[in-house]
Amino acid sequence: MVPMELAEALAEAGRRMDARGWVPGSAGNLSARIDETRIAITRSGVHKGRLTTADIIAVDYEGNPLVPGQKPSAETLLHCQLYRLFPAVGAVLHGHSLAATVLSMQGGITFANYEILKAFGYATHELEVRLPVYENDQDIARLANFIEPLLQNEPPIGYVIEGHGVYGWGTSVEHAYWRLEALEFLLACELERRKLK
Amino acid sequence: MVPMELAEALAEAGRRMDARGWVPGSAGNLSARIDETRIAITRSGVHKGRLTTADIIAVDYEGNPLVPGQKPSAETLLHCQLYRLFPAVGAVLHGHSLAATVLSMQGGITFANYEILKAFGYATHELEVRLPVYENDQDIARLANFIEPLLQNEPPIGYVIEGHGVYGWGTSVEHAYWRLEALEFLLACELERRKLK
Amino acid sequence: MVPMELAEALAEAGRRMDARGWVPGSAGNLSARIDETRIAITRSGVHKGRLTTADIIAVDYEGNPLVPGQKPSAETLLHCQLYRLFPAVGAVLHGHSLAATVLSMQGGITFANYEILKAFGYATHELEVRLPVYENDQDIARLANFIEPLLQNEPPIGYVIEGHGVYGWGTSVEHAYWRLEALEFLLACELERRKLK
Amino acid sequence: MVPMELAEALAEAGRRMDARGWVPGSAGNLSARIDETRIAITRSGVHKGRLTTADIIAVDYEGNPLVPGQKPSAETLLHCQLYRLFPAVGAVLHGHSLAATVLSMQGGITFANYEILKAFGYATHELEVRLPVYENDQDIARLANFIEPLLQNEPPIGYVIEGHGVYGWGTSVEHAYWRLEALEFLLACELERRKLK
Repeated sequence: MVPMELAEALAEAGRRMDARGWVPGSAGNLSARIDETRIAITRSGVHKGRLTTADIIAVDYEGNPLVPGQKPSAETLLHCQLYRLFPAVGAVLHGHSLAATVLSMQGGITFANYEILKAFGYATHELEVRLPVYENDQDIARLANFIEPLLQNEPPIGYVIEGHGVYGWGTSVEHAYWRLEALEFLLACELERRKLK
Repeated sequence: MVPMELAEALAEAGRRMDARGWVPGSAGNLSARIDETRIAITRSGVHKGRLTTADIIAVDYEGNPLVPGQKPSAETLLHCQLYRLFPAVGAVLHGHSLAATVLSMQGGITFANYEILKAFGYATHELEVRLPVYENDQDIARLANFIEPLLQNEPPIGYVIEGHGVYGWGTSVEHAYWRLEALEFLLACELERRKLK
Repeated sequence: MVPMELAEALAEAGRRMDARGWVPGSAGNLSARIDETRIAITRSGVHKGRLTTADIIAVDYEGNPLVPGQKPSAETLLHCQLYRLFPAVGAVLHGHSLAATVLSMQGGITFANYEILKAFGYATHELEVRLPVYENDQDIARLANFIEPLLQNEPPIGYVIEGHGVYGWGTSVEHAYWRLEALEFLLACELERRKLK
Repeated sequence: MVPMELAEALAEAGRRMDARGWVPGSAGNLSARIDETRIAITRSGVHKGRLTTADIIAVDYEGNPLVPGQKPSAETLLHCQLYRLFPAVGAVLHGHSLAATVLSMQGGITFANYEILKAFGYATHELEVRLPVYENDQDIARLANFIEPLLQNEPPIGYVIEGHGVYGWGTSVEHAYWRLEALEFLLACELERRKLK
C-alpha cells in the first residue's frame, strides 16, 4: 500500500531523529504524502529509532487507515491537515526534543539574525521569525481545528505544541528532515542564549 | 539458564543506555523476569555497553544466583523487590545519568504538563507527577526495606536514589527501555529548566 | 576533475562534522586545494553528513565551476580567498555549530591559557588568542572584500561570521578537521564558562 | 615491539574517548605497561579516534623510544611516572574534556556523596574526594617533578592539569577506561551543579 521507497525514507528519518535524541520512548510521528488520496504515516506505539517498513501504514486525508485494523499515530490529523492546506508539503516530521519542550513552556519563541533561517526559503538572515507555540490538547481534532485558521493566515516555518514537541515539514522526507534539523538548531541556540542572560 | 532471547534483549538495552551515556564505568544493572521463580540480571563488574549473553545470569526472587559462584549485581534485591511487588513488571533498568544524579542532589523532583507523561499510562498531560528520591544506602537489604512500603502505598513511574541514579521498569525489556528514555527526557528537561530560572 | 582521494577525504570530513552536529540541514561547506588553478568544493544544497564524491566539484580561484552548469556552495569565494592569501592552506571547513553561533551573537571571543591552543602552532598555552567575529552579509563578494585586509594584517586561527558559523583550515583535509575540532572545543568551553559567571 | 593485544586495546580506548568528545584534534595520549622495562604509548601527532596499532610505540621508563626515530607523545614522562610510582597501574589515559578543562580553570574540584565514587575502590558514597588540579607547564620534566611528591603523599583518583585535561588510570586498559568514564561523569555532574547555583 505504501511505496517501499517512501517507507524506507521515513524509517531512515526516524533513525536520524533518534540518533539526535528527538524521539524518546515511542514519541514522535513521521509521514509522507503518497498521492492526492493517501498519506503514509508511522503506526501507533513504535520506537522511531527502530522503524521497519511494516511500521509505515497508509491513511486517507481524514486519517482513516486504508487497511482495516491498522492503527495510525494518535496525532495523524495534524499531519493530514498540513497536506490538505499546503500542496507543497511532501513530508511531515514530529519529534519531542528537549529544547522545543523546555522553550515551549517559557512562552513565545522568536529567531532573529540567524544565517540558518535561509533554510526556510528566506533570502536574508536579517529578519525576525516567530515560531508559533500552540497549547497542548489531547483532543487532536479540536487541536487541529484550533490551529487551522492560524496556519492559513500566516504559514509558519513549523510549530511547537506546548510541553510536547515540534512539527516540521518539507517537500520530501529528506527536505523535511533538513528543515527539522535547522529548526532544532535554532531552538537549541535560543535555549543556550537564555542561559547566558 | 537464561533464555537466549532475554539475554540478548538485555545486552542490547545495555548498549542503548551506554550510547546515551547513562552507564559510565561499570555503573548500572539490567534485569528481566524469566518466570515465577527466576530473574535474569547482569552480573557484577561489567561495562553495560559491552554486555554479552554470558554476562546475564539467573537469580531467584531472593537474589541468590542459581549457578553457585556467579555474582549478580550488588543491587539485585532492588530488582527482585519490583518483580515481587508488581506482577506487570517484566524488566527493570537502572542507570546513572547526569540529570538524575544532579537533580537528586537538589531535593524533590516533579514533572508537570509534559506530553511525554503519557508514556507512563496517563491519559492526559495535565497533571503533576512526583518522582520519588530515596536516600542512598550501601546496605541494599535495608534500602529495599525502607522503600518497600513507599512503593506499595503509591506505585511511582520510577524512582531515583540520591547521588546515584534512576530505576525504571516496564512490561518487557523494550517497554522498560522506552519508559527509561521518557524518564530521562523528563529529567533532562527539568535540569534545563532550572538553569533558566 | 576532482582527484578521488580528495573527494573522499572531504566526504568523510562532512560525516565527522555531521556526527558532531556542526552541519544542520544543508549548512556548511568544505573544500580542498587541488593545485595552483583548481579547488575542490562541495556543491550547493547537499547535506554534509551524506556527501558522495559526486557532490564534490572543481572551481577555479575565482569560484567559477570548471564543469559548466555545476553549482558550487554560495560561500565559495570565502574559500578561494583563503587559498589565495595563504599558500600553506590545503583545506577549508565551514560549519554552523551551536557554540559558534551563540557566542558570535554576544560579541568578541578570546581564548586564554588553553593547552589546546597549541593545535594552532603556538609553543605555549600562556597566551590570549582572539577569534575574529565578522558581521554576516549575504553579498559574499562584499564580505570577502571586507575580510581581506583583516586576514592579511593579522592571520587568525580561524574566524566566525556572526550568527552563522566558523571557518577553519589546515594544510590537509585531516589537519583542517583537527584544527576545527580544536576550535569548536575552545568555543564550547567558552560557552560553558559564560554560564558559570 | 608492542604486544598486538595491548596495541588494539589502546586503539579501541581511543575510539571510545573520541566518541565521547574527549580527544579533540590530536589531543590526548594513551598508554599501557608492557613489562618492568617497557611501556606502550601513542605516538605524537595522531588523532586518538583513528589510532591503528602502528600508532602505538614502545618506550622505556624514562620515556625514550625503543625504536630509534619514533616519537612518543610529548607528555610521555607523566605516564612513565605513574607506572614507576604505582605498581598496580597497568594503563593511563589522558584526554581533554570540556568539563575537566572548564572546571580546572575555576579552582579546586571536590566530589561528595556520589555513588559512582565506588568505582575508585571506596566502600561507601558518604565521603568527599578531592581531584587535584595542577598548574599547566610546557616543560613536562619540570611538571612531573612538581607532581611527584604530591602523588606520593596522597595518591589521588586521577588528576587534572589546568586548562588542559584529565589523567586517569587503572589496572588494565579496560579498567582505566571505566575509571576515566566515572571521573568524567563526576566532572560533568559538578559542572552542571555549578550552573544551578
